[in-house]
Parts: sequence; C-alpha cells; structure tokens
Amino acid sequence: MTAGDARARVERLAAAVAERELDQLIVGDLVRPGDTGPDFGANLRWLSGFTGTSGLAVIGPQARIFITDFRYVERAEHEVGDALEHRRAERRLIPELAGQLEGRVGYDDAATSVANLRKLEESLAERDGGVELVPASGLVERLRRVKDEGEQRAMAEAARLADQVYEDIAAQGLVGRRERDVALAAAARIRELGGEPAFAAIVAAGPNGSAPHAEPSDREIAAGELVVWDMGARVDGYCSDCTRTFAAGEPDTEARDVYELVCSAQAAGLDGVRAGIGGADADEIAREVIKAGGHGEEFGHGLGHGVGLEIHEAPRLAPRSEDQLLEGDAVTVEPGVYVPGRFGVRIEDLVIVTADGHHNLSSLPKELRVVD
Amino acid sequence: MTAGDARARVERLAAAVAERELDQLIVGDLVRPGDTGPDFGANLRWLSGFTGTSGLAVIGPQARIFITDFRYVERAEHEVGDALEHRRAERRLIPELAGQLEGRVGYDDAATSVANLRKLEESLAERDGGVELVPASGLVERLRRVKDEGEQRAMAEAARLADQVYEDIAAQGLVGRRERDVALAAAARIRELGGEPAFAAIVAAGPNGSAPHAEPSDREIAAGELVVWDMGARVDGYCSDCTRTFAAGEPDTEARDVYELVCSAQAAGLDGVRAGIGGADADEIAREVIKAGGHGEEFGHGLGHGVGLEIHEAPRLAPRSEDQLLEGDAVTVEPGVYVPGRFGVRIEDLVIVTADGHHNLSSLPKELRVVD
Repeated sequence: MTAGDARARVERLAAAVAERELDQLIVGDLVRPGDTGPDFGANLRWLSGFTGTSGLAVIGPQARIFITDFRYVERAEHEVGDALEHRRAERRLIPELAGQLEGRVGYDDAATSVANLRKLEESLAERDGGVELVPASGLVERLRRVKDEGEQRAMAEAARLADQVYEDIAAQGLVGRRERDVALAAAARIRELGGEPAFAAIVAAGPNGSAPHAEPSDREIAAGELVVWDMGARVDGYCSDCTRTFAAGEPDTEARDVYELVCSAQAAGLDGVRAGIGGADADEIAREVIKAGGHGEEFGHGLGHGVGLEIHEAPRLAPRSEDQLLEGDAVTVEPGVYVPGRFGVRIEDLVIVTADGHHNLSSLPKELRVVD
Repeated sequence: MTAGDARARVERLAAAVAERELDQLIVGDLVRPGDTGPDFGANLRWLSGFTGTSGLAVIGPQARIFITDFRYVERAEHEVGDALEHRRAERRLIPELAGQLEGRVGYDDAATSVANLRKLEESLAERDGGVELVPASGLVERLRRVKDEGEQRAMAEAARLADQVYEDIAAQGLVGRRERDVALAAAARIRELGGEPAFAAIVAAGPNGSAPHAEPSDREIAAGELVVWDMGARVDGYCSDCTRTFAAGEPDTEARDVYELVCSAQAAGLDGVRAGIGGADADEIAREVIKAGGHGEEFGHGLGHGVGLEIHEAPRLAPRSEDQLLEGDAVTVEPGVYVPGRFGVRIEDLVIVTADGHHNLSSLPKELRVVD
C-alpha cells in the first residue's frame, strides 16, 4: 500500500464514521490472544498495513490514532507510516485505548469479546465520563469490498500461484493417492512457491465429494472417481479461491453429464457477473441452468462470495442476497451439484467485477480433465 | 482419548459446574467464524475430542449435551462418542443451544463475542424464560492443567519431533542464512515429520536476540553471533515448546559467560520444579542465579508457563504468580538474559511435574553448541 493509498483509506473511513453519526470508531479485534485465526486483524491491516497481532486504531473526523504495544513499535513504524499518529501502550492495549476515546464511539461487536468489552468499560469508568460505546460493525468491511490496483495484483498473484500448484500436483497423478496426501502435498507446494494456504484445501473423491464441505480423508482415490478439489493461496495477506473437479481415470456417463451441466451453469453465472447486477440475480442465472438439467435440489449453497483479506467477505451471490455487485468487487462463481452418496462436481473461478463484465483471475481450463 | 477418559472428563466438569453453583456450563467458543486461531476450541476438544470448528457442549449435573451442525455430524459420531448426547443444529448453533439451556448457565466471556451473546439472549427471549446467563471462565482450563497419560504421550512425541527438527536444520549450518529462511525450513521439516508448528518459530541472531519476542527477519546470521531459536511442534493437538541458543561460529567471552549463567539458572529452575512449589517460588530460584550474576534487570519475563492444547495455559511460573504446581502439570522452564542491542540467551525445556521433581520432555543437550 502506498502512503497515498493509506491516507485515502483513512479519510474514506473517517467520512463513513461521521455518516454513521459516530465521533470515533475502534478498528481492530478485541478477542482472546489465541484467537488469531486466518481472518484476524483484516480490518486493521486494510486500514493501516499493520500485520502484527496487537494493534488497534481509532478513527473519526477528529481522530487518526494507531496503538500498539512495545513488541510491535518498530514494525508499526515500517508498516503503518504517518497516515496515523502512533501511540504506544505500556502493556495492555485496552487502558491506552480508553484514554484515546471521546464521545460516541463505535466498536465491532462481532470482534470484541464480552470480557474485553467489560475491561474497556472498566478502564473508561476510571476517567471522567462522556464516552458512549455503540456496537457498529461492517463500516470497514463495506470499504474493503472494492479492491484497488494493488489488492487486485496480490489476488491475481495468489490465483496464479494456486493454478501452478494444481498443475504440479495433478501431474503426479491422483488414482491410488489418499485425499489427505494430495491436500498436504498441495499445501507444501503453495508454501514452496512463497504463499500460504488461504484455507485448508478440500480434496474429496467419489462419494466424499457429495458433501460440499468434506475434509480430506485417508481414503484412497479410486479409478473412475470424480475429485472435487477446492484450494486457494494467500499472498501479501490476500486470498485466492478456486475449485476444479478432476476425473481420476475415465468417469461414467452420469458423472460426465453432471460435469457438463455444472460447467454450463458456471459459464452462465460468469456471463451474468457485472457491476450493478444483484447477488441474487447472478445466483439465479446459474441456478436456472442446473434446475433445467434436473439437479436443482442438489445445488445446496450459494453461487459465490466476496474474497479479499478474508476468504469469505462481502458481497454474497446467493438466493437471498441483498447485495449488488460493484466495480472492483472480487467474487467467486462456484455452482455445484452433489449427488448424495455418489459424487460431487463444483467448478469455481475468482473474478474481479468490471463495469460491463468481469476479469477472471483463474487461468485453469474447465473442460473435464482426466488424470490417472 | 478412550471412552473411559471421555466419561471421566465429563463427570469431573459436571462436578465443577455444580460446585460453581451453576446448573449448566456452555463449553466452546462463540467467536467469529474466522477467529479459529491455534487455540480455538481447546476446551471443547479436551472435553469431547471434537476437532471441528462448529461445536458446543452443555454440561451440568443434569446435562451431557453436544451440538454440531450438519457439516460435522459424521465427524462428531467418530470423535465424540457416547459420553455426550448428540444434537444437530439445523443451520446455526445458537438457536439450538438456546433450546438446551436451563437455569443458571455459565458461559466463557473471554471466548464469546458481544454479538453472539446478544444473539443468544435474543434466542432465549423467544422461549419461556428462566435462563440466567453468567460469565464463568476458567472451569475447563483448571481441569485441563493436569495431563493424563495420553496427553503426556502426545506432548512427548511433539517434543521429540521438534528436537529432531533442531538437529536436522542445525546440521545445515547457520552462518550466512537469513533468520526467516531458518524458521521456514524448520516449519517445513516439522510438517514433513507429520506435525504442525505449534507457533511461529523465533529465530533471532545477534542484536535481534535481545528482544524476547523478535520475529525472524531477512537479516543474515553472522559468524560469532548467538541465535535464540524458540520452536515447538503440535501432535494430536498437543504442543511442545523449546528454546535453544546456538552459537553461529565461535562467540566472544561475554556471550559465553552470559550463556553459562542462563544455563545455571535454568538448571536451578528445573531443580526447583516439583508438585507443591509455588509458581513464584520456582521463578525466584532461577531469577536469583541471574541476579547474582549481575543480569537481573535483563531477565524481563517469567520463568515459564503451562503448555497443552494451547501453547500458553495455566499455571504461570512468574514473580507474581499465585499458582502452585500440581503433579501432571506440563510447564516450561525458560530463563533468559537480553543484553540490549547486543544479543540474547534463552534456554527452555518442557517438563511434566511429578511428586518429587519433573520428567523432562526435551532431550537436546544444553552446553553451548557452536554451529558454522
């Protein structure tokens, strides 16, 4: 992120805070120390570039504050720059945070533990009053939706890296390998190429593929099975997300037919993606194809979701979504058909929404690929 | 965990819930979906064996309930067994949870987001009342302190695995390698051997070693520098934790002297560890050695901490700890001296506390090892 980008993000957020009729917004996660999962700190990272585990920002019309503790002072100087004023907490962030708050202050109730809210309230009670804490989530997430050039570059790189890993691992063959071993080999290859896995890959063969969220098992992939393989890489914090369904040896006619149906639905879904379309309408376009093919009941999830610093973020492409796609959204298009106890097929690309269509970050072919 | 172990854990927790004057305790983390960090779900895993990301238990004198959603029903059948009654949530866990609650119900306020507490309260409001929610943390953590045979076995295996990785990576030499490359190679080797890194390793050479929580940098390790290398593996969910300070080529006399001092302090600290000693007293034994050597001000952290499903858990060995060590506690003993801007030394073992001493899970030698 350039210094100009950083300042622009801070200003956009400050305006959104004012519009929400808040004096300040606390940005950052107030969770347990051990709850630093893959999505931890995404809002603060987007706003400030900070990648440490102990940091907070306070943003509002009159506030441009960044707080970290002694362990991260030096890192913050490098990463955060001067779009924010740096404050150093002596030990814990919350007492220092309390000292910076004024007026009506929003906090992210989804990312604040009950215990930490109580600690913050206790710290505030020790000083003269005048601070009102208000649950306010989603402000930063809304701004994060539209990806700027640098973000799109990171996501494109993550997608290219994952595509390379599909090629490298598939080249070693699938029949007779355990699902888990394929997933582990893929994760190791992502790391070798300089990325991190964006999430635990799904490698689900034959009947296992009929559960949309199957986890890789110790089951060996058998000849003739379809293999649903859902994988992404993370580069500079940004995720990619892709699914291909491979055939481990020649599949039967039913599997081929379902594959072709999902492939058509995915193409139709992609054709529908453009700025301005509703997330529900995009979903409907792909879903109609699958319904017409007689498998509507076996497509039990939404068409797609936003991707960025988090693997699942706004907007949603799903029957009940109320989102509208925006230019610069990064979304997946991933219809699937899951035939219970038999097999599954899912095909997923990650695309950047443009004014009149999309730019596809996934380069892998979509005709059914038979790998022995 | 055997079926007998599982039932015993449930019964012990049910008794602790009654003693806390609660009718039920909610076990499990009610955090954001993306906050599944390394310590996520430790209480539920200890209680039930469940390793998925969507599960809760409700335990009390009259309650033995396990809840998961459709994605994890099958896994729960394998992992959780019949010490608990299984309930399946249709989509979200919280409405199903609300339906199971009765009377005075404890929840872990450190592991529950403000938003999820509100959702739970809303679900409860939809049925007839009679449920009082009470913050109650630490009940499961207290039971988790003392490790049974199976837990000790997993930790011993994790420690052995990490020891092997130290040997394998050190054998490749240290001088001229970047700290980050050593850390990445170590993480890759842990995975190759079938474990996971328990935390992001610290590899901190020369002046970088003088920050206790340094992160691996792009700086090349120079000849004559000390290298603080803090690393652990995770096997079956259980962590190991170890630090060795290597010499990358022959160090100077001051560095050698400080190394010997820390080594003596660590030996003294180990000698003090036995069931019944206070965490503050154990710390004091090692600290006195470092003070007598004139470096008391440069030992700026506690002597150690408990380890188990989490890398940091109870008890604490530190100046202000009020814990007493118990037979079966797994704790680190890790004094350090950090000479600002020059170098650091830390030596850490992981031990199981016994009635009259300890059983050391770390097998690496502690005389200063010079690696080119």
